[in-house]
Amino acid sequence: MYPNWILQRAYLTPNRVGLTFEGKQWTFREIKEISILRAKQLNALGIEQGSRVAILGENDANTVFVMYACMHLQCEMVILNRRLTKRELAYQIDDAEVGTVLVNDRDLPLLPENVNFILFSEIEKSAWKPVEIRKEWSLDQTVSIMYTSGTTGFPKGVRQTAMNHQSNALASVLNIGLSENDVWLCAVPLFHISGFSILVRSLLYGNEVKLYRKFDPEPIAEDIASGRVTHISLVAVMLERILHVFEEKELRASPSFKLVLAGGGPFPIDYLKRAEERGMRVLQTYGMTETSSQTATLPAEDALRKIGSAGKPLFFNQIKILGAEGPYQEGEICIRGPHVTPGYVGRFEHNPSMIDGWLHTGDIGYLDEEGYLYVVDRRSDLIISGGENVYPAEVENVLMGHPAVKEAGVCGIEDATWGQVPIAFVVLKKDASIQEIIEYCSQHLAKYKVPKKVHIVDALPRNASNKLMRRKLKELLR
Amino acid sequence: MYPNWILQRAYLTPNRVGLTFEGKQWTFREIKEISILRAKQLNALGIEQGSRVAILGENDANTVFVMYACMHLQCEMVILNRRLTKRELAYQIDDAEVGTVLVNDRDLPLLPENVNFILFSEIEKSAWKPVEIRKEWSLDQTVSIMYTSGTTGFPKGVRQTAMNHQSNALASVLNIGLSENDVWLCAVPLFHISGFSILVRSLLYGNEVKLYRKFDPEPIAEDIASGRVTHISLVAVMLERILHVFEEKELRASPSFKLVLAGGGPFPIDYLKRAEERGMRVLQTYGMTETSSQTATLPAEDALRKIGSAGKPLFFNQIKILGAEGPYQEGEICIRGPHVTPGYVGRFEHNPSMIDGWLHTGDIGYLDEEGYLYVVDRRSDLIISGGENVYPAEVENVLMGHPAVKEAGVCGIEDATWGQVPIAFVVLKKDASIQEIIEYCSQHLAKYKVPKKVHIVDALPRNASNKLMRRKLKELLR
Repeated sequence: MYPNWILQRAYLTPNRVGLTFEGKQWTFREIKEISILRAKQLNALGIEQGSRVAILGENDANTVFVMYACMHLQCEMVILNRRLTKRELAYQIDDAEVGTVLVNDRDLPLLPENVNFILFSEIEKSAWKPVEIRKEWSLDQTVSIMYTSGTTGFPKGVRQTAMNHQSNALASVLNIGLSENDVWLCAVPLFHISGFSILVRSLLYGNEVKLYRKFDPEPIAEDIASGRVTHISLVAVMLERILHVFEEKELRASPSFKLVLAGGGPFPIDYLKRAEERGMRVLQTYGMTETSSQTATLPAEDALRKIGSAGKPLFFNQIKILGAEGPYQEGEICIRGPHVTPGYVGRFEHNPSMIDGWLHTGDIGYLDEEGYLYVVDRRSDLIISGGENVYPAEVENVLMGHPAVKEAGVCGIEDATWGQVPIAFVVLKKDASIQEIIEYCSQHLAKYKVPKKVHIVDALPRNASNKLMRRKLKELLR
Repeated sequence: MYPNWILQRAYLTPNRVGLTFEGKQWTFREIKEISILRAKQLNALGIEQGSRVAILGENDANTVFVMYACMHLQCEMVILNRRLTKRELAYQIDDAEVGTVLVNDRDLPLLPENVNFILFSEIEKSAWKPVEIRKEWSLDQTVSIMYTSGTTGFPKGVRQTAMNHQSNALASVLNIGLSENDVWLCAVPLFHISGFSILVRSLLYGNEVKLYRKFDPEPIAEDIASGRVTHISLVAVMLERILHVFEEKELRASPSFKLVLAGGGPFPIDYLKRAEERGMRVLQTYGMTETSSQTATLPAEDALRKIGSAGKPLFFNQIKILGAEGPYQEGEICIRGPHVTPGYVGRFEHNPSMIDGWLHTGDIGYLDEEGYLYVVDRRSDLIISGGENVYPAEVENVLMGHPAVKEAGVCGIEDATWGQVPIAFVVLKKDASIQEIIEYCSQHLAKYKVPKKVHIVDALPRNASNKLMRRKLKELLR
C-alpha cells in the first residue's frame, strides 16, 4: 500500500527538474510521461507486467526512462554490468531465466549471441498498447536484480525489493539530511547499486540527478567548484582524479557543495586530507549489492574525527561482529535491517541469504568503543579494483578451465590508480605461456577481472586441510 | 525488526542535544540513560512490559522521560488531555482499561477519584528492578493511544502504532527536508499528536526539541527572531500572538528559521500575509489523531501560491474525495497510507477504522486541478477552538443530560481569538436558567468545550427524517 514512486513524485513536485543529461533537462512530470509511454510501448512489444527482463545500457537518459518503464510494469529488472564479457552476461541472462534483454543501441556489440533482445530505439519508435499502471506498489516486490559473486565464485542474482531500496533511501536522509535544492551527480554506473540508488533517492526525495555518460573529471570538478551539484557518489580512483583537477586548477568546492559519498572500498587517508583541503567533505560508506547500497556511513559530524572508519549503521540498520565480545575484536560483519535482500534468483534461489535473521557478509571488521565500524578485510579475499568487485574464486575457476593449468590462486596487490588489481599464481600440468593464459582469461572475464600478472609457481600455499591460503600468495612474490 | 528509536538514536549521535527545557539540556545519551532508569523504576513499581498505562502530565522534561520509559517497556500509553474534566478523564481511563495512571505531580489535582496512580516523583525516587530493554521493535506495536470524538459524541481511543509514527516522520522529512542543525520548538501539548509527533521526529531525525511548559509568545518570538530554533508547530491563535509580538517589537524571523508547521484548522489569510512580512514561512497542514499528525502539508515551494490549501499528501499517503469525478468537486475526504491508525481500543475496538482500506474522515473537501487539497468543512460539524477539537455531538449529549433540557443543538461561531467557539441552542421541558445550564456543562466538559452562549428556543431545525441540521442553527441567531 505504498505509492508508485514515479507517479507520486510527479504528483507532488511536477515542475522540479528530476534529471539532467548532456544539457537536456526533464521535470518529474516529463519523466512520468515518458516512462509511462515507454511502459505502453514495451507492452506493445510483448513485455508483460510482472515478467523478468534484463537491461543493458550505459548511463544515459534513455536507460533511466526504460528502467522507470519497467518499474511501472512491475517487471523484475536484471541490471547487467556492461563491463562483463559476453560469456559472463550469457551466464546471468540464462541463470535469471530472462525473457528479453532491453539493450541501449550503443551496447548491442556487448550482447551475447542467441538472446532475445529489443533495442531502445525500437521501443522509442514502437506503437503503444494501453496498460494499467498500478498506483500502488507492494514493498515486497523485487524491483531490481544485480549479480554479485561470493565465496563460490559463481555470480548470484541478488533480489533488491522496493522495501530494500526505500528503506535505504530513507535511512540515508536521516544521516545526511535533505534540502529541496540538492542535486546529486551520478557518474558511477547505473548498473551498480551505487548508481541505481541515486535514481531511487531522486524519486523519493524529489531532487535532481545530474547524470554523466562517463566519469569525466574536468567537468565534474567544475560542477563541484561552481556549486552546480551538491552531492556526488565516487569510488577512490575517481576522487583522486577529481582532486588532481582541483589541485592543478587551484579550485575549491563551492560552499553549497555538501558531500562526497565514498563507496567501493577503503579510501586512502591521503585522499581524504587532500579533499578536506579543497573544501570537499568525504563520507566513507560501507555497502554491498545485498544491502541495496549503504549499510553504514560515517556521520557528517565524525567525518574527520574517525578517518578510516565506515561509520555507524544507518538508522534502520544493525551491525554485529560475529563472535566478538567487546570493542576492537575482529570477526565477520553481520547485517540486519529492512535494506537486506530477501534472497537470490536462479541457481541460488533456495540458498538462504541470512542466518538467524542476519546477513553474514564474509567481510572481517570490528567496532570501536563508540560503535564505529572498521572494515579490516573484504569477504573471501575480495579485491576491489576501481570500485568493481573481483572475486578471486571466480578468476581461479576460469584459470583452472585452461587445459594447461593444474592449480590457480588469485589475490590483489596495491595499485596506485585502481586501489587494487588482481594477480594470479598457477601451477601447470603442461607447458603454456603466460601470454596465452592471460588471453584465455580475457575471453572469459571482464577486463577488470583479468590478472594483471600471472606467475608460474611449483606449488600454492595451502593449509593442513589443503585449502588454498590466499593471504599467503603474496609471499611467493619475494 | 526495526531498532528501538531511543537506543538507536543514542548510539548514532550520543553527543547531540536532544532536549532543552527551562535552561537545561540533555544529549541523546543522557536521554537514553534517564529513560532506561525510569523504565527500571517503573518495573520496580509494578508496571509490566507490554501493559497499558495512562500518562497525565504537562509539557516538561519529566513527562518526556516517562513517555520514553514506557516506550522502552513497550507499554501502550494512553496520553491524557489535561484540559479535560475529571469525568471525561475517568471515561477514558475506564474505557481503555488502564491499570495505572502515571501522573506529573503538578497534575494530581486533575486526576479523577478512585484511580490507580503513580506520581512522577515516586518514580524518580523509586528503587529499580532490572528489565530487558528490547533493542528491536515491531512496527505493529501500539506506541500511543489518544482519544478523539467523532460523529457519535463518544470519545474513541485511537491506536497509534510505531509504523504510524515512523511513516509520518519519514514522509514529513521528504517534504520539508532536514539538516543536522534543526531545532524544533514545542509549545503545543505533548498530549496532542502535534506535540508528541515532535518527539518522534526528534528521535528519528536526531534533532533538538526546545520544549516549553506553556505557550509564551514573548520568548518564543525571541527564539524565532534570533534563530535559536528553526521549526515550530502552531495553531492559529498562537501564531497571531507571536505576530503581535513581532509587530510590536519590529522583529523579523532569523534567516536560519525555516518554517511554522500550521495545524489545527484553517489559518486566516491575514495571518499568513503578516507572517510572510516578518520572514516566517507558514506551511499549512491537514492531519488528525487517526493519522498520527500530518496527512497533507503544503509543500515549501507552494506556500504562497496556494494560500488556503492544505497542500498535497505526504509521500507515502494518498487522498481521495469520495464520489468526486474531477477537480473542484466536493466530497468526503478519504485517506490511505502507513500513517493511518489500524483501529481503536475500548468500546469501539471492534468498529472498523477503515472502509475498503480508506479512512473516511467525515471532513468535506476538494482537490484542485493540480491535486491540492482544500478542506471545506470539518467532520461532523467539528468546531476547532484554539487548536482543540470540539465535537457538537459530545456537547449535545451533555446538555441533554440536564434534567430541564429536552433537545440540544451545538455549533461553532467565529471568534477573533480562538478561531471558533461553541454555542448551544436548547429546547426546555421545564424551567431552567441559562446560567444553570452553563454551570452544568462546566462540570462535565473541558473548559474549551463549554458553550460560550446558550440560547433557549422553541424548536431546532430538523430535516424530513427529523435529523438535526446543525448548519442551520446559526440562522436562529437572527
